[in-house]
Amino acid sequence: MTDHIAELISAKKHRELKELIVDANVVDLADDLEELLPEQRIVLFRSLPKDAAADVFSYLSPETQENLIGLLTDPELSHIVNDLFLDDAVDFIEEMPANVVKRVLKNASEDTRNQINQLLRYQEDSAGSIMTTEYIDLKEEMTVADAFARIRAVGMDKETIYTCYVTDARRVLEGVVTVKTLLLSEMTDRIGDVMSTNVIYAATGDDREQVAETFQKYDLIALPVADTERHLVGIITVDDAMEVLEEESTEDFHIMAAMEPSDDPYLSTDVFELAKRRIRWLMILMVSAFFTGGIITRYEALVAAFPSLISAIPMLMDTGGNAGSQSSTLIIRGMAVGELHLDDWFAIFWKELRVSTLVGGVLGIINVGYKWFLSGNFALGVVVGLSLFATVVFAKLIGSMLPLLAKLLRFDPALMAAPIVTTIVDAGGLMVYFMVARVVMQL
Amino acid sequence: MTDHIAELISAKKHRELKELIVDANVVDLADDLEELLPEQRIVLFRSLPKDAAADVFSYLSPETQENLIGLLTDPELSHIVNDLFLDDAVDFIEEMPANVVKRVLKNASEDTRNQINQLLRYQEDSAGSIMTTEYIDLKEEMTVADAFARIRAVGMDKETIYTCYVTDARRVLEGVVTVKTLLLSEMTDRIGDVMSTNVIYAATGDDREQVAETFQKYDLIALPVADTERHLVGIITVDDAMEVLEEESTEDFHIMAAMEPSDDPYLSTDVFELAKRRIRWLMILMVSAFFTGGIITRYEALVAAFPSLISAIPMLMDTGGNAGSQSSTLIIRGMAVGELHLDDWFAIFWKELRVSTLVGGVLGIINVGYKWFLSGNFALGVVVGLSLFATVVFAKLIGSMLPLLAKLLRFDPALMAAPIVTTIVDAGGLMVYFMVARVVMQL
Repeated sequence: MTDHIAELISAKKHRELKELIVDANVVDLADDLEELLPEQRIVLFRSLPKDAAADVFSYLSPETQENLIGLLTDPELSHIVNDLFLDDAVDFIEEMPANVVKRVLKNASEDTRNQINQLLRYQEDSAGSIMTTEYIDLKEEMTVADAFARIRAVGMDKETIYTCYVTDARRVLEGVVTVKTLLLSEMTDRIGDVMSTNVIYAATGDDREQVAETFQKYDLIALPVADTERHLVGIITVDDAMEVLEEESTEDFHIMAAMEPSDDPYLSTDVFELAKRRIRWLMILMVSAFFTGGIITRYEALVAAFPSLISAIPMLMDTGGNAGSQSSTLIIRGMAVGELHLDDWFAIFWKELRVSTLVGGVLGIINVGYKWFLSGNFALGVVVGLSLFATVVFAKLIGSMLPLLAKLLRFDPALMAAPIVTTIVDAGGLMVYFMVARVVMQL
Repeated sequence: MTDHIAELISAKKHRELKELIVDANVVDLADDLEELLPEQRIVLFRSLPKDAAADVFSYLSPETQENLIGLLTDPELSHIVNDLFLDDAVDFIEEMPANVVKRVLKNASEDTRNQINQLLRYQEDSAGSIMTTEYIDLKEEMTVADAFARIRAVGMDKETIYTCYVTDARRVLEGVVTVKTLLLSEMTDRIGDVMSTNVIYAATGDDREQVAETFQKYDLIALPVADTERHLVGIITVDDAMEVLEEESTEDFHIMAAMEPSDDPYLSTDVFELAKRRIRWLMILMVSAFFTGGIITRYEALVAAFPSLISAIPMLMDTGGNAGSQSSTLIIRGMAVGELHLDDWFAIFWKELRVSTLVGGVLGIINVGYKWFLSGNFALGVVVGLSLFATVVFAKLIGSMLPLLAKLLRFDPALMAAPIVTTIVDAGGLMVYFMVARVVMQL
């Protein structure tokens, strides 16, 4: 559709343009807008139905938002800012440079400005930082008919109308009632009688990952957020929870691959920034590998006397690393989705011990055969096979226990993933290898 | 709360038990039920409010579901099965052994049985397999008042009432209308006039991962599913989309750590099954590493003449592997969340070339210094530093391009993660290392 829009803009067919986009989805319109040239963007944006403009704006990339703001008049900007959902306004403001933020806030209504400033104060990654203050609040004494009247009066500007929150005079959260319940109740029923008082809610300081898990556990579409005195301060909607879930998974992927995590888009992040995020861990792991190299140096005489020992080193290191990374990935992910917990540690240990014995045994035996066949030296086969067996068992125990240990010490378990496990297993595996070689081959 | 429930059950205080649980959340009740002894479970289950029983049942683990079914009478079972949402019924039936399935279907009403059988026919991982057929359908000619009457009449048994679907006489999907729109319209408005005809929908055969992405992109709470002739056949709700998102991430984590993916809970999966899922890839990678070992064998004379070359091998292999895995993880995840695409390949290549030059350069220089300082041999330092530089560049290019190549060939990009990249980089890195050594040290 973007091409068609661009054509209509070039041909100045404004009426046809408006007709084309009147029933279009706001997300698709945002996509179209991203594809246009800057001078075409403002034309499309000005052609949007008034109540769709802020919605479309909230789906744009920060670059396009900034570019568009530069072209908007103050009254236009004011309309957009006041019409945005507050959580979207906050997300957008956090991405803008200081001078743009200043102009945006200057053009916001006083009420909007105050609310934005309040939301900006919540700590990053907290429930407060992803909530919005636009919800429907009801009182116990209202009837269902009153509630519907209220929804009709204020509903258009609320992020969700399907769950309504019942508060007392001091804004303390007393109950929730869904529109489903309202629709299935009598118009004369009291809200206090039809509401549920068993309210699941988050505290403003809760970790946003924990919030996303609550959504999943209880299949919610919205979750109220209360302060320490149970005053209702905002709500979080399921679309934001879903985004958190995806961002947290991405963060784990990055950390587990030894990078500083980031949710900046790859293609628009500059080379120095990307290099910086990667080099720190590479350096730490490289220095650790220097020690592994030191182990080999200690056995240089052994290696010189028997050079065919070296050819098995890559296989030992790779297989050990892979075996350990399998276990650490399973445990880290199991903890992240709430399936495994610290007190499962013995069950995990016992399971990994048996799995690794089985897996290490099979792989070890294959190596005995392979090395024996290749070199005609049975003792060498036994050395490689035995070492591989020990390395796999060691790798799987280290790989499964380290993430649990990190959790115990309140570090992020994702840190204890393949890269670190591999480094430790390499050192351990090589040490075993040379010791076994010395004993078996009586060198 | 579980302890309290167990006490009341032991003390046979049934009335107090019922009072305790009447306002409890169904998900929490399911958690409580899991914790109880089998003979206590059935007592709690029979104390549940009639309309909560099926809901609680749908949140139980398959083991507990099977255990409970063995204790239920036929009429009780019949009530549960007919009351379950169809997608939950299907999920549950798919986990049960054949004899249980037979008894469950025998106790379902004919209508429920037919619908379950229909849903069971959709391919695993397809949109059809996660949808439910319980939605609210309206007709264009209805008024808003008619629509509310219909929602009141049938809403209790529908998975969501907040989005209603407008179909013609042949069940062709014509539009959607949300309860929000209904509430903000006049009671006399025609549904055909207030509905949106720009409907986002999935096809029954669509991949469920793609469905979850649609939910995220458009911030939906429900998505209709239509067949090839656009007949409405079901809907998917956001809680299921969120679960898909999490399961697909878990699958990627597993594949990227060289395991066959699985969403069975770790603790209840037996050791042989776990070992089987891990050993296949370990074996493939181990055999690949045999070739890497072969490279070393070819240079045995070189190594024997200059044994201090060996001690850098672990550092070279580990750093190369880590550098490659950083790039492949970024690209695989970027493609999974829809941020990177095949046609970005050159931008990615060019970016990784520059990042790897920078990172490889810094790490290489550190190694020249370290080796020189340690061994007093500048040439050795140059060999190691140069090789590391080449290995990091090679690793990052291979790591970023292989997932794109997999995508191009319609394989899962997640397969081209750390384990395979490491194996390839090890072989390449060692080859470069020995060649550089031969040239620089003129051996």
